[in-house]
Amino acid sequence: MRVVCAPTLILISVTICCSLTEKLSNGSSTNIIIMLMDDMGWGDLGVLGQPSKETPNLDAMAAQGILLTNFYTANPLCSPSRAALLTGRLPVRNGFYTTNAHARNAYTPQEIVGGISKDEILLPEMLKKNGYISKIVGKWHLGHRPQYLPLEHGFDEWFGSPNCHFGPYNSSVRPNIPLYILFEGLDFIRRQTEAKQPFFLYWAADATHSPVYASKSFLGKSQRGRYGDAIMELDHSVGQILSLLQNLGIEKNTFVFFTSDNGAALMSGPQESGSNGPFLCGKETTFEGGMREPAIAWWPGHIKGGAVSLQPANVMDLFTTSLALAGISPPDDRMLDGLDLTPVLLNGSHQLDNRPIFFYRGNEMMAVRLGQYKAHYWTWSNSLEELKEGINFCPGQEVPGVTTHDQKEHTLQPLIFHLGRDPGEKYPLSVLSKEYQEVLCSVSAVVQQHQKTLAPGMPQLNMCDLAVMNWSPPGCEKLGKCLKPPTSAPWKCNWPH
Amino acid sequence: MRVVCAPTLILISVTICCSLTEKLSNGSSTNIIIMLMDDMGWGDLGVLGQPSKETPNLDAMAAQGILLTNFYTANPLCSPSRAALLTGRLPVRNGFYTTNAHARNAYTPQEIVGGISKDEILLPEMLKKNGYISKIVGKWHLGHRPQYLPLEHGFDEWFGSPNCHFGPYNSSVRPNIPLYILFEGLDFIRRQTEAKQPFFLYWAADATHSPVYASKSFLGKSQRGRYGDAIMELDHSVGQILSLLQNLGIEKNTFVFFTSDNGAALMSGPQESGSNGPFLCGKETTFEGGMREPAIAWWPGHIKGGAVSLQPANVMDLFTTSLALAGISPPDDRMLDGLDLTPVLLNGSHQLDNRPIFFYRGNEMMAVRLGQYKAHYWTWSNSLEELKEGINFCPGQEVPGVTTHDQKEHTLQPLIFHLGRDPGEKYPLSVLSKEYQEVLCSVSAVVQQHQKTLAPGMPQLNMCDLAVMNWSPPGCEKLGKCLKPPTSAPWKCNWPH
Repeated sequence: MRVVCAPTLILISVTICCSLTEKLSNGSSTNIIIMLMDDMGWGDLGVLGQPSKETPNLDAMAAQGILLTNFYTANPLCSPSRAALLTGRLPVRNGFYTTNAHARNAYTPQEIVGGISKDEILLPEMLKKNGYISKIVGKWHLGHRPQYLPLEHGFDEWFGSPNCHFGPYNSSVRPNIPLYILFEGLDFIRRQTEAKQPFFLYWAADATHSPVYASKSFLGKSQRGRYGDAIMELDHSVGQILSLLQNLGIEKNTFVFFTSDNGAALMSGPQESGSNGPFLCGKETTFEGGMREPAIAWWPGHIKGGAVSLQPANVMDLFTTSLALAGISPPDDRMLDGLDLTPVLLNGSHQLDNRPIFFYRGNEMMAVRLGQYKAHYWTWSNSLEELKEGINFCPGQEVPGVTTHDQKEHTLQPLIFHLGRDPGEKYPLSVLSKEYQEVLCSVSAVVQQHQKTLAPGMPQLNMCDLAVMNWSPPGCEKLGKCLKPPTSAPWKCNWPH
Repeated sequence: MRVVCAPTLILISVTICCSLTEKLSNGSSTNIIIMLMDDMGWGDLGVLGQPSKETPNLDAMAAQGILLTNFYTANPLCSPSRAALLTGRLPVRNGFYTTNAHARNAYTPQEIVGGISKDEILLPEMLKKNGYISKIVGKWHLGHRPQYLPLEHGFDEWFGSPNCHFGPYNSSVRPNIPLYILFEGLDFIRRQTEAKQPFFLYWAADATHSPVYASKSFLGKSQRGRYGDAIMELDHSVGQILSLLQNLGIEKNTFVFFTSDNGAALMSGPQESGSNGPFLCGKETTFEGGMREPAIAWWPGHIKGGAVSLQPANVMDLFTTSLALAGISPPDDRMLDGLDLTPVLLNGSHQLDNRPIFFYRGNEMMAVRLGQYKAHYWTWSNSLEELKEGINFCPGQEVPGVTTHDQKEHTLQPLIFHLGRDPGEKYPLSVLSKEYQEVLCSVSAVVQQHQKTLAPGMPQLNMCDLAVMNWSPPGCEKLGKCLKPPTSAPWKCNWPH
């Protein structure tokens, strides 16, 4: 079918880019706390429909703040999602992707050669301009070689691990760094408050990433098994942080945002993964279950309590929004994908309703959301070969023609869903309908503009080498545990999905 | 595998039956309002995770009342569910089932011969004992022949329709009764309050049953299409009722319960059906999506606001609980399946945590829930033949061995799920695990006792006859629209699923 688009529709995408000049007048020293969970799903919060309702602190945070029900990550995998948050740019721009094969998710395992490029500007580097002190507590995941570590990229303090914490631990064949307990943030908040120093705390807890972790005092406490125990502990920690802010009397001067890096890792089974609520599939996929995230903004005295925002938004907006709160102009020498959400969060503005959300998997734009509509240009869950091995990104779910096991191209006739009527992406609009044709016109214009102006960054996740692993992590000398790295023998990393 | 059950475990079911003597001292004239929605799903409420968050009044009702996240219907279809609510008894006892074929859902279409038996005692009949005036506003669905209608079974007033409202309308081949607007309840509340008369209002709105209905002022207002518009209107109506109670100053003397008759009718597609949140399948099935219901109890000054109860409960408990609130002893000449929930709702008691929930489809106990565990003795979605015709009770969902398309018997080795860890019923426990064996022991004892004491009622939904249809509904004479019934020719009704 040939669709004739009215020229007026094409203008939508132009309007989007020009409504972001609103500035926050008195925000020049607002503290910023970003709580980024690991593989936590949209449906894991009581306030978002988890039947066990075991997140009283997060539910209270939502009741005192604003809940964003249409908030997305930039990629359905840890590393690229985190790189996007801290740079305000899509992974395909900031280099956190691979070109080794088509549309493959990639991250930073121990053998990765690359990491976050020195040419990227990270949020803590920007915040320095207004005197902020920044700390990361938890998982970094933007490269573990010395030049890629947090203190080289704007953070002043770091307590956590460079990578995922999956084992084997204490192995001399695959050296690993054990898990950390995640509460140094409280001390940091206290110290900066005493020093009257504006701060940025990036709490990147990894307890809900497989192997799921909960402290002894939470084990067996939830209705949901070990994963639920971890959720309860994280929820408790959120409560501790918010209480501390109130006890210190800095809650009206501290913007707190809670979200997760990607959808629940359904392939890990019920003991080790969470819930994506009513959404389709999970981590690794560009369906809603892979990329829609729980999201709460909390800032007493500034954000109206109990509000719900339907604003389509994403982790890259946190970069731009944080800069607006800090009174710092965003970098003007590069394309940014994040928008300043302060008009939405503080004044309930609807100016940004039509901003698009792009769903990438590796080097491919798989889908785009515009308003209530989502158009899939490519669909893929994972390969039949992987499925036969028991790796399933959509367990219990199967939507014919949608959760495809081959990379299916739909660029000439994208699958379009209305996410209001059909959040589970089960019923594509009929291509013969007027609605489909009108949506396709708007979406095509946005996609065309996006792709025309896209300059992909140098891919950082293409090359692997056993020699770059953490054979001699800091402190190993004292323990006599330093290992000798093997001879360098780089290879093109294999990214199976 | 042969399981050896410890005798102590078998005692669980005995303990269950004996903890229901608690009485409400001052409840002798508490008004009762039961709001029963039609085909509304667990996931349709904002507070239960509907992403559109378009139910501010119901969310507020939950914030002021108690949300029951483990509340069930007694059957995944309208008529039997309603019969169970009003009698406090399982459909297999009160006759609202069929024996025409194994495990078939049945209801009261226009050609049904049967209806609610005069031997059953309905809630409004019981409430009369303490001087209550009762009204039903909306859908009856317990038989449309004169002897089965509401005013013959204890209701003093009725504004609504005897059956479902699906068409064709104004047909002389299949006569039908059109839809009613549902607000006569407000007037009833006002009148009874003025008369200082304790009342029972049973608001059985059918707007979310296909064909979904919303008034002009709500059409196009939701993000979810026509179904969402209907939800918004019902939510608005809930707000109106609660506001009226407060304006009349009777809110502390009026117990209000909101729930639905069965899960969302997923087979009706995205414009005409709702959401069952994270649960499996929908209406017509005994999976969680077919039988777990949204449920809120509201009673300012008596129920603590913002509470969440995990109590496994069901619509039959509303019969017993209402009697307790009215200070009336339940009938002692018959087996009741409902429990008095007042200790749970008012005092947060955990005495009833281990009461079982039975999942029936027609004449078969398909599954039972005990604590967090649910054991499926039979599984069935619908037949392959129906599926090929496009009738799908689990669209987009498929759990191998669980959402079976034949009636699969598991009585020797039931499929057991832990609903806390796995609310979506995707991961049966391994039959080799200790957990499975222990659970099987407890569940088997409960099932054995249940089946041993079960005396099925006379099935009311076996026979059909075109002659019993509403050929001459009341008032037809005035309009000159009375039709002549055909000669009686009864047949065994066909219940395909």
